[in-house]
Amino acid sequence: MTVYYSVLIIGGGLIGSSMARAIKSRNLAERIHIADASADACKVLEDLGVANSVSTDFNNKIGTADLVVLATPPGVMDEIAPDVVKAMKTGAVLTDVGSTKLGLVKLLAPNMRSDIHFIPGHPIAGTENSGPAAGFADLFEERWCILTPVEGTDEEEVTRLSSLWEAMGSQIATMDPERHDMVLATTSHVPHLIAYTLVGTAMDMETVTRNDVVKYSAGGFRDFTRIAASDPEMWRDVFLHNKDGVLEVVDRFIEDLSALKRAIRWGDGDTLLEHFSKTRDIRRRIIDAGQDTEKPDFGREG
Amino acid sequence: MTVYYSVLIIGGGLIGSSMARAIKSRNLAERIHIADASADACKVLEDLGVANSVSTDFNNKIGTADLVVLATPPGVMDEIAPDVVKAMKTGAVLTDVGSTKLGLVKLLAPNMRSDIHFIPGHPIAGTENSGPAAGFADLFEERWCILTPVEGTDEEEVTRLSSLWEAMGSQIATMDPERHDMVLATTSHVPHLIAYTLVGTAMDMETVTRNDVVKYSAGGFRDFTRIAASDPEMWRDVFLHNKDGVLEVVDRFIEDLSALKRAIRWGDGDTLLEHFSKTRDIRRRIIDAGQDTEKPDFGREG
Repeated sequence: MTVYYSVLIIGGGLIGSSMARAIKSRNLAERIHIADASADACKVLEDLGVANSVSTDFNNKIGTADLVVLATPPGVMDEIAPDVVKAMKTGAVLTDVGSTKLGLVKLLAPNMRSDIHFIPGHPIAGTENSGPAAGFADLFEERWCILTPVEGTDEEEVTRLSSLWEAMGSQIATMDPERHDMVLATTSHVPHLIAYTLVGTAMDMETVTRNDVVKYSAGGFRDFTRIAASDPEMWRDVFLHNKDGVLEVVDRFIEDLSALKRAIRWGDGDTLLEHFSKTRDIRRRIIDAGQDTEKPDFGREG
Repeated sequence: MTVYYSVLIIGGGLIGSSMARAIKSRNLAERIHIADASADACKVLEDLGVANSVSTDFNNKIGTADLVVLATPPGVMDEIAPDVVKAMKTGAVLTDVGSTKLGLVKLLAPNMRSDIHFIPGHPIAGTENSGPAAGFADLFEERWCILTPVEGTDEEEVTRLSSLWEAMGSQIATMDPERHDMVLATTSHVPHLIAYTLVGTAMDMETVTRNDVVKYSAGGFRDFTRIAASDPEMWRDVFLHNKDGVLEVVDRFIEDLSALKRAIRWGDGDTLLEHFSKTRDIRRRIIDAGQDTEKPDFGREG
């Protein structure tokens, strides 16, 4: 089922290359073009054999693409998005896959063309790995994709972009960019910040060697190292782009941590037990919703 | 290979029942007895068919056991350990599997009998599940078991207990209880506290619904819910037993988090990038050490 005749993906990393794979394997476009600023990445992308063209310059194909997908880190997106908008053909759709939405919407609003369709998007999918070789066609299966179209966006084009994501295996949610950024601060950005922080704290303890940390990581620490192995450049940009949302959730987290710290200091076991007893339910719901595996230890020992 | 003629495991939960399974399946004892205060747990344990006797009263077999393993939550251990010591037969070995070591060592020191051998232990293994049905014989494979014998402990008995753990698949490390508690505060206790806290924070946000948290959990949050589904009673006891170690590491963590928060507030991308770039290495080392899987997302999508 062809959804768009010609798709240009700008940024061929984990998400961009997974989209290219998914679009190719499910025949969702007649032409797939990928642009990536890195010549090394282009080499890997060419070897995949899923694109009709791979180039370091997005200008090569931007004038003919029906769908343009921004899939670079957020900082790069800010730099190139205005030029991308200018060069697109009339009637084409612009979307992105960035982890924050409000920044790009605000950036592009003043100069948005009325003859193209801008529909920001964010697939809630990924792994701790990055780069074109890390992608795979099933990455978006059973995951949600959030679209944040501004008021007045052509409904037909939102439906068409939704059908592309659905064909890649995703479920679609729409919300405004502000709400997206607060929800993701909670479910993704602050969890990453905390994981990065804890891994750094453990590495810097004078009383505990790095060798200790590695050997005894199965007690819980190793779970945090997976997230803290994510792409540093992308995550720097995410935090700078969702400053308000992240700071609000972090402050709430520190408040809650301080309350539990106080309970530990004063030996208040009842407060601890009450808190620890209420957090099991949400995991059950996540498993029931198909967003995680039920297997112990994520099934990794099996 | 029989290591002990008769083993009594007090507390038949995840760890205790896994030990019983491992000892049975590898023929490491002639007699396996399990005591558990819960009649329901005893029923499950009997149905497993790995024990020669199952009882709600540890006194039934304590007078004849060559090895007594305390595998209850730390709070219960404190209550029963003095009576266990009194009832053991001359020459027998007492060990435990508790996540903190200093508390029990201090508790038993004043009344320790010179005619029995007390060798505290802690297998760095487990899952988020609890109870007798959650156990499995391979739980200790490739995991470390830390022993913290006090000075003057019979070397031969330390070697014998080590060989039991080795036969269950573990590697042995010995250290003093103080060091154990600080290392585990870093690699296990504080990670659990932070996961419990973050899951609670997300559940309590007014601007984000629980439905949002469930649907978009694949962005990172779901990893934390696994750890926050661990046994509440046990973890309450762990924090109360390792107060000093936990508070020291938590304070360091909050310092580090505040520094990153400040970098976000002031748009200091260089500090963020530097921090995020240094945490990848430790995951590589954990994978190389056989303490985690290399597969993306812990292999759970596969």
